[in-house]
Amino acid sequence: MTLKLGVIGTGAIGQEHIRRCSHVLQGAKVVAVSDINLKGAADAVKRLGLDAEVLSDGKEVINAANVDALLVTSWDPTHEEFVLAAIAAGKPVFCEKPLAVTAAGCKRIVDAEMNFGRRLVQTGFMRPYDQGYKALKKVIDSGEIGQPLMLHCAHRNPNVDDSYTTDMAITNTLIHELSVLRWLIDDDYASAQVIYPRATINTHAKLRDPQIVLLETVKGVRIDVEIFVNCQYGYDIQTEVVGEKGIASLPEPASVLLRSQAKRSNAILTDWKDRFIDAYDAELQDFINGVINGELTGPSAWDGYAASVAADACVAAQNNPGVVNISLPPRPAFYER
Amino acid sequence: MTLKLGVIGTGAIGQEHIRRCSHVLQGAKVVAVSDINLKGAADAVKRLGLDAEVLSDGKEVINAANVDALLVTSWDPTHEEFVLAAIAAGKPVFCEKPLAVTAAGCKRIVDAEMNFGRRLVQTGFMRPYDQGYKALKKVIDSGEIGQPLMLHCAHRNPNVDDSYTTDMAITNTLIHELSVLRWLIDDDYASAQVIYPRATINTHAKLRDPQIVLLETVKGVRIDVEIFVNCQYGYDIQTEVVGEKGIASLPEPASVLLRSQAKRSNAILTDWKDRFIDAYDAELQDFINGVINGELTGPSAWDGYAASVAADACVAAQNNPGVVNISLPPRPAFYER
Amino acid sequence: MTLKLGVIGTGAIGQEHIRRCSHVLQGAKVVAVSDINLKGAADAVKRLGLDAEVLSDGKEVINAANVDALLVTSWDPTHEEFVLAAIAAGKPVFCEKPLAVTAAGCKRIVDAEMNFGRRLVQTGFMRPYDQGYKALKKVIDSGEIGQPLMLHCAHRNPNVDDSYTTDMAITNTLIHELSVLRWLIDDDYASAQVIYPRATINTHAKLRDPQIVLLETVKGVRIDVEIFVNCQYGYDIQTEVVGEKGIASLPEPASVLLRSQAKRSNAILTDWKDRFIDAYDAELQDFINGVINGELTGPSAWDGYAASVAADACVAAQNNPGVVNISLPPRPAFYER
Amino acid sequence: MTLKLGVIGTGAIGQEHIRRCSHVLQGAKVVAVSDINLKGAADAVKRLGLDAEVLSDGKEVINAANVDALLVTSWDPTHEEFVLAAIAAGKPVFCEKPLAVTAAGCKRIVDAEMNFGRRLVQTGFMRPYDQGYKALKKVIDSGEIGQPLMLHCAHRNPNVDDSYTTDMAITNTLIHELSVLRWLIDDDYASAQVIYPRATINTHAKLRDPQIVLLETVKGVRIDVEIFVNCQYGYDIQTEVVGEKGIASLPEPASVLLRSQAKRSNAILTDWKDRFIDAYDAELQDFINGVINGELTGPSAWDGYAASVAADACVAAQNNPGVVNISLPPRPAFYER
Repeated sequence: MTLKLGVIGTGAIGQEHIRRCSHVLQGAKVVAVSDINLKGAADAVKRLGLDAEVLSDGKEVINAANVDALLVTSWDPTHEEFVLAAIAAGKPVFCEKPLAVTAAGCKRIVDAEMNFGRRLVQTGFMRPYDQGYKALKKVIDSGEIGQPLMLHCAHRNPNVDDSYTTDMAITNTLIHELSVLRWLIDDDYASAQVIYPRATINTHAKLRDPQIVLLETVKGVRIDVEIFVNCQYGYDIQTEVVGEKGIASLPEPASVLLRSQAKRSNAILTDWKDRFIDAYDAELQDFINGVINGELTGPSAWDGYAASVAADACVAAQNNPGVVNISLPPRPAFYER
Repeated sequence: MTLKLGVIGTGAIGQEHIRRCSHVLQGAKVVAVSDINLKGAADAVKRLGLDAEVLSDGKEVINAANVDALLVTSWDPTHEEFVLAAIAAGKPVFCEKPLAVTAAGCKRIVDAEMNFGRRLVQTGFMRPYDQGYKALKKVIDSGEIGQPLMLHCAHRNPNVDDSYTTDMAITNTLIHELSVLRWLIDDDYASAQVIYPRATINTHAKLRDPQIVLLETVKGVRIDVEIFVNCQYGYDIQTEVVGEKGIASLPEPASVLLRSQAKRSNAILTDWKDRFIDAYDAELQDFINGVINGELTGPSAWDGYAASVAADACVAAQNNPGVVNISLPPRPAFYER
Repeated sequence: MTLKLGVIGTGAIGQEHIRRCSHVLQGAKVVAVSDINLKGAADAVKRLGLDAEVLSDGKEVINAANVDALLVTSWDPTHEEFVLAAIAAGKPVFCEKPLAVTAAGCKRIVDAEMNFGRRLVQTGFMRPYDQGYKALKKVIDSGEIGQPLMLHCAHRNPNVDDSYTTDMAITNTLIHELSVLRWLIDDDYASAQVIYPRATINTHAKLRDPQIVLLETVKGVRIDVEIFVNCQYGYDIQTEVVGEKGIASLPEPASVLLRSQAKRSNAILTDWKDRFIDAYDAELQDFINGVINGELTGPSAWDGYAASVAADACVAAQNNPGVVNISLPPRPAFYER
Repeated sequence: MTLKLGVIGTGAIGQEHIRRCSHVLQGAKVVAVSDINLKGAADAVKRLGLDAEVLSDGKEVINAANVDALLVTSWDPTHEEFVLAAIAAGKPVFCEKPLAVTAAGCKRIVDAEMNFGRRLVQTGFMRPYDQGYKALKKVIDSGEIGQPLMLHCAHRNPNVDDSYTTDMAITNTLIHELSVLRWLIDDDYASAQVIYPRATINTHAKLRDPQIVLLETVKGVRIDVEIFVNCQYGYDIQTEVVGEKGIASLPEPASVLLRSQAKRSNAILTDWKDRFIDAYDAELQDFINGVINGELTGPSAWDGYAASVAADACVAAQNNPGVVNISLPPRPAFYER
């Protein structure tokens, strides 16, 4: 069978996912799209050579008879409404992060899905699909380094523009670590603290950069994440897991070793797309396969909710010199992995 | 459109390519198969859940009206016959290496294809599709290391069984370097010499292991390839290109860095499939795309021929203490890259 | 000239320094020793083949007419007394860390030395003499990575015995980072905080292990130091300096790269002596040269005092969930570097 | 005791060794020097602040009553004469490489020393004193990689001037590998072949650069050494030992890992002095210690002879397209290690 997809939101990321479904992945095709900018949606359909209807509203896409499943890639504040509508229609939905712009909104989605009685929602967290994180998790799960005790992480970006503000270090950047680390060590966050190092000269008035976020987990693991979005030198994602018997680090992307000009060097990527493009492919293929096989196994609505609760606490900690508690209700059996 | 493929030969590699076309790649499906073992072919069709006819003979597959293009994965000595038949039928054909078991056979294919007037043949050399070699070629082509002067290579395998004999170090193993290195540095081989180091205790009476093959190219580049198929420790492919201004090395596969038991370590792969599986996917996707777009750009019949001529000289050099010339006719304009 | 040394304290470290002066370094010889265990001192003199007098008391050594300079390697609580006596006698003195067991004691030494009017004291901090730290400082000072903003450090030891308690993570272990980091980035500590990750199963009741110490410097640099003294896998010292334009890391000790058993690996040291033995040689040679040239340039009494003040704050922070201020008086011109 | 040294030859390397003995090493001092340029010798004595006599001739230095041992650092063609004279005087002598400019000359020294009945000669081969080669030998001798089968080596230099000619690739450059590799794997050379890759544009008319020397040892080990003295990018010494079970590589010199400008990089040295200065210190300290202890254990006259025989064969192989035999008489019991 070929899964027939409806796409709500045909901006940059929407078009990227459409391209992926149409030219890279197996088993799906896009049959309907909508966007708040109708003309933009129509242009995208033409440019991408789709045989797809342009509908005037996301709800219409959701309810179109020939649409089997949805991709929600619209403006963040509209995610919740469309995901809830998809659940109401009983159709599987892949929603780009954030699942909702508030923890309460995420919770409403969780509740609706549990009410429905079967998983319909996959949250767009792609890092668990990255080969590097998968290899790292495999080492941790093998017991080779013993129980994890500490994680030292860094999320570095060459630079950001003036629209990127202090809180976005959490909501746009750290959100990736918040989503992947709890999966990596199968744990949840218990508290957060933010400390501000000396600021780089390369930042602007509305952005404190770098920042260090200190997290404690329910099991007592301590996590430090350096967020440095004007680091100049490259896009560099680091995760080091210190266990009782050894330490495992996220693989560096494979690259040519060069000996030249009195240096042995390997290139560092500078664009996040180069780093994670394969993971984006894999997450969406997994969604397609999951829908076809009748069982979604990727990041759930609960995962979206848990990340949202943690992110809220981290933003609070940015404005508070002390430790902020993170309290997530117990994970319902419905969402057991 | 969906490309309709016929597969001749449903042994291990044939089934692997069928799986690939059916479950990983985009744009193609297998509609007909044959094998000398008809029952085996029928079983494979069932096991892989194909909607494909089982025909009694490769020629029937080639000529089946609903077959757009062919994959030849049959017994090596039959490759030539089926490729020639596909050309005669004017159908694109992907042929697993070797293109033919003799250089003369390869040449007959080259001649037939040139007679036909358009490229129909892709030879199953997958290393140019490996991300590592592509990255290495990009560095070389950038001029960053200047003109290549020497290549130091190694092809190491944990172990082989007793059916692997001295000549197979060339025909089964070195053939991969012979195919990829001339592409990598855009050059051709001019001579070969083989030297035999002290033999490992881990070999058997019919296999001299390790061996070192010394090649000179038309441009004077010197290549040394260590072939060591009982190296015990892993599957390890090395290529170091020494240029006038610097040196570039094939990337090591990405892997977790582990600190444990008084060692910093990265895993080395032990199975060639893990090393090159993505390249196999990419070569076949490229064939599918090439057929759909009406232009094959992957390894050509000429490339298959050139590798075959070089391999013959290397085998001769195994039995000859001196230098053996390699003489390939000039590349026809038809095959210009 | 040959510098004639008196050594106070002939325990393990005393004997080690005597061996160093007698068999490795240039320009000095040991002419007098003392120890609270007189027989032990006499045995050491015999075993090391010294032509040295055994005196009954450290003060006698200090005042012996043929003694030009002193090494104080006695029991920690006696350091202050002997260093003050050496200053009183106007003789240069190398004092093993700690300079004194309290910050107040260190301050008395600083005051005495300033009163004397010329540097006589070198504190036994050897890390600034390590080739790795020197190379790292050179990179920082070159401006290549811009202004330092954060330091990520780790001090890991395979294991400790039951006599090692929580506070010793500061006084025996972190003290090395406290001494070297302020030198490395030419800064001073402003506050400390200690956080306790989940404890390893390999610790004992009186030791919280691992610990993370968070320091802020006067210039706003944030430092995190992981102290993990039962890490099992090796003796591993890490320092990563994150600057405005790049990141520089302490060199890994040179070691053979081994490919075997499906791993690429480098050995990690397991004994701190192997890691820093050259630095011990260099610090003492520097003291000898400094005395001969009439100018001490190594770690000063002030450096000993500054480390002591910081260590006291860190110990306070171990028993306090919040941030503890570190306040050091302004550095006197006398001690300007 | 302090060993009283006479130095014959006060050019660059002579002054360097004098500085070493006077300011770095233990247990020796220079008491007499000579040079063909008497004024130069006098100037050196003054500049280096020595309390040493300037004698008019090397023989006078050898026979001076207060001279215990000799350093021969004069013009290469005079080495043999001075070493023979030292042996005749029964005085230990450290002779810079080459021991003599012909194999026959080396053999005369070997014979004279055996006649004398006790080792008096140390040849100035410093690589066995390098920590890296020592660590590599330790791994080989441990059996961890099994029996060595192949060595892949490179000797690269940023550039040379016009006085450096093709044969000097052997006599000035490869000589270091010839001396260290037979020690490393405890073997001797059986044959040599030289192949010439495409020449770099950075060479001149009288120098074929790069060159590859292929050696076979008595035990059948195959060694390839790339000699590339205008490689531009750095001074880079590589040795990879391929054994039956694994591969061990010469350590890279320790260096800061830098992340900047989209690269992870480590500096490569550009000057051989930085690479091997510690080894020069160690070899001379070993000579001093050996003389004081009455037993020389460093590179012997036999080692100088064996390297010379191999170098002669390599030079012959530069002018001969085939394989040149290397035949060394059996090692006399006198020189057993």
